[in-house]
Amino acid sequence: MNSDLSYLQVRDIGEQGILERLQRFCPPEIIGDDAAVLAITAQESLVVTTDMLVDGVHFSDITTSPEDTGWRASAANLSDLAAMGAFPLGITVGLGLPGDLAVSWVERLYQGMTECLQKYNVPILGGDIVRSPITTLAITAFGQANPNFIIRRSTAQVGDAIIVTGIHGASRAGLELLLNPQICQNLESEEKAALIKAHQRPNPRLDVIPILQEIFTSPCPISISGMDSSDGLADAVLQICRASRVGAILEQSKIPLPSAFHKWLTPGQWLHPPQAWLNYALYGGEDFELVLCLPPPAALTLVQKLGAGASIIGTITPGLTVILHHENERIPDQALSLSQGFQHFS
Amino acid sequence: MNSDLSYLQVRDIGEQGILERLQRFCPPEIIGDDAAVLAITAQESLVVTTDMLVDGVHFSDITTSPEDTGWRASAANLSDLAAMGAFPLGITVGLGLPGDLAVSWVERLYQGMTECLQKYNVPILGGDIVRSPITTLAITAFGQANPNFIIRRSTAQVGDAIIVTGIHGASRAGLELLLNPQICQNLESEEKAALIKAHQRPNPRLDVIPILQEIFTSPCPISISGMDSSDGLADAVLQICRASRVGAILEQSKIPLPSAFHKWLTPGQWLHPPQAWLNYALYGGEDFELVLCLPPPAALTLVQKLGAGASIIGTITPGLTVILHHENERIPDQALSLSQGFQHFS
Repeated sequence: MNSDLSYLQVRDIGEQGILERLQRFCPPEIIGDDAAVLAITAQESLVVTTDMLVDGVHFSDITTSPEDTGWRASAANLSDLAAMGAFPLGITVGLGLPGDLAVSWVERLYQGMTECLQKYNVPILGGDIVRSPITTLAITAFGQANPNFIIRRSTAQVGDAIIVTGIHGASRAGLELLLNPQICQNLESEEKAALIKAHQRPNPRLDVIPILQEIFTSPCPISISGMDSSDGLADAVLQICRASRVGAILEQSKIPLPSAFHKWLTPGQWLHPPQAWLNYALYGGEDFELVLCLPPPAALTLVQKLGAGASIIGTITPGLTVILHHENERIPDQALSLSQGFQHFS
Repeated sequence: MNSDLSYLQVRDIGEQGILERLQRFCPPEIIGDDAAVLAITAQESLVVTTDMLVDGVHFSDITTSPEDTGWRASAANLSDLAAMGAFPLGITVGLGLPGDLAVSWVERLYQGMTECLQKYNVPILGGDIVRSPITTLAITAFGQANPNFIIRRSTAQVGDAIIVTGIHGASRAGLELLLNPQICQNLESEEKAALIKAHQRPNPRLDVIPILQEIFTSPCPISISGMDSSDGLADAVLQICRASRVGAILEQSKIPLPSAFHKWLTPGQWLHPPQAWLNYALYGGEDFELVLCLPPPAALTLVQKLGAGASIIGTITPGLTVILHHENERIPDQALSLSQGFQHFS
């Protein structure tokens, strides 16, 4: 491999820099969403997404069992399909395995993958197994969508309500509990277990898609924009706004947090949650919830149908900034930026 | 990662052993072909195949430029689609990249991939780029097939003619020339270049599929069984026979070899080609030709349509052995076995 330091190296420009340079090799119309869309017939589109996971970078036996690594890998890919409004058809699995890896590790990985997939009736359609010095997992998931009902990042409209499903920050908090088991002594063990489970066994929100389809078609078609919150809530809103050339205002108090966060804080603190918890919700990622932008009446219908499972957290605005607003006027508005999110290369 | 030696390790049972243990996680009907088939509608099936390629295991800058690594990776996946009788729709690309890899290496890889793909009008439908200690490439290719015309390994019939497209052994000979440039001094430089090109820029035989479809449907449907010869001609025939529970007899003299092999040998040797050349053709692999079994009249039609581009090399027989027969009766028949082929784990 060429390691001449006089060359521009991958670490110099990072994942985003490489992606930008490779875009010229891809059809422009398929870039920029959680998954690619390919028209098959007038009624059917194929939706495809792929993820690479590398031992020590994306998973680790220290915090995650092989079963949970398998579950999370499946869930992440199914979540990308849900983010596009697609129903899953199947996945393929590529495995790079060191010779000294325990066979039981591989079986336990598959056990976890299928536990997640079976919940959504998704088959593993084969794959490839090769020798590699580092355990590597490449999952490609494909789904089917109605070409007229595909959720994209680039179609958010000024005035749309911003809805999130579920709660945010739980996965990151669960990871923190795994890394530092001594913290949060005042939480019940069930509360800790729920946060840890949110990290280890996240659920892709495929259950929301039929409900969205219903709203989409009745009484007349509306525009639904969105993506999943796999890289954090802030990232999702910022990506949607950038792709749609709009801005947003988010109400900090409306961001749904795990109830255990509440218990951990004194009542006085609850209105001003410590920055750490807000960071978990905004930047923690891996909650695999949906962030959707749709006209306010449709948004209200969705909230009615999902009950406590969805929250309107803000509004799409003109301009290009994403503002976090607090109902306490003494707390200044905060502009969010992508640079606060995770960087994959360092 | 668990490296306790008391456990059964990946190297103890190899790629095949792992695959067998993981089969219980996959639907049984989709196992055993070059690609998985998923029914979408009565008229359309989705065909999916995936490959992992690891630096130092599957490619190397010593023998292969990044452009050629890209071309070969694309070609291998398109060949798997051709082997199923499918037309390609697109590919996804997962990349694991070390931080010190030259960005130009990645761009040149993509250049080679797209040079191959553009020949068949196949788009790259996005992918994933992650940090990894070792350069890793995961390609998933998608194709579309008529559910009534899918080429499988398991449907060969006793009496079928065995046809191969193209020539065999050229890719392996080209690799040998790259590894040992000093050999074969008596070959013209064009002949060497042709063998090297067969290794660096193999062509998936998607061109054969429309011709096969024509034969398949006229005058009445016939059975076509087969796969590609990516792991060698012997492997392909053995895999088809095992899946179809039949045997085969191959005529050694009918196996189409590169014409440059002829020139290298003395006339007397030509009827008894050195074992090395036969091994290249039978076990060398990566020629990405098709090995097909079909009724003799249809086989003759195919040979007429493809001209010198196809050869009948044998017949499907009862029993389970694959025999290599020489027209010189003093040379004993040889039973072929999968264990003579490449083993991916050592």
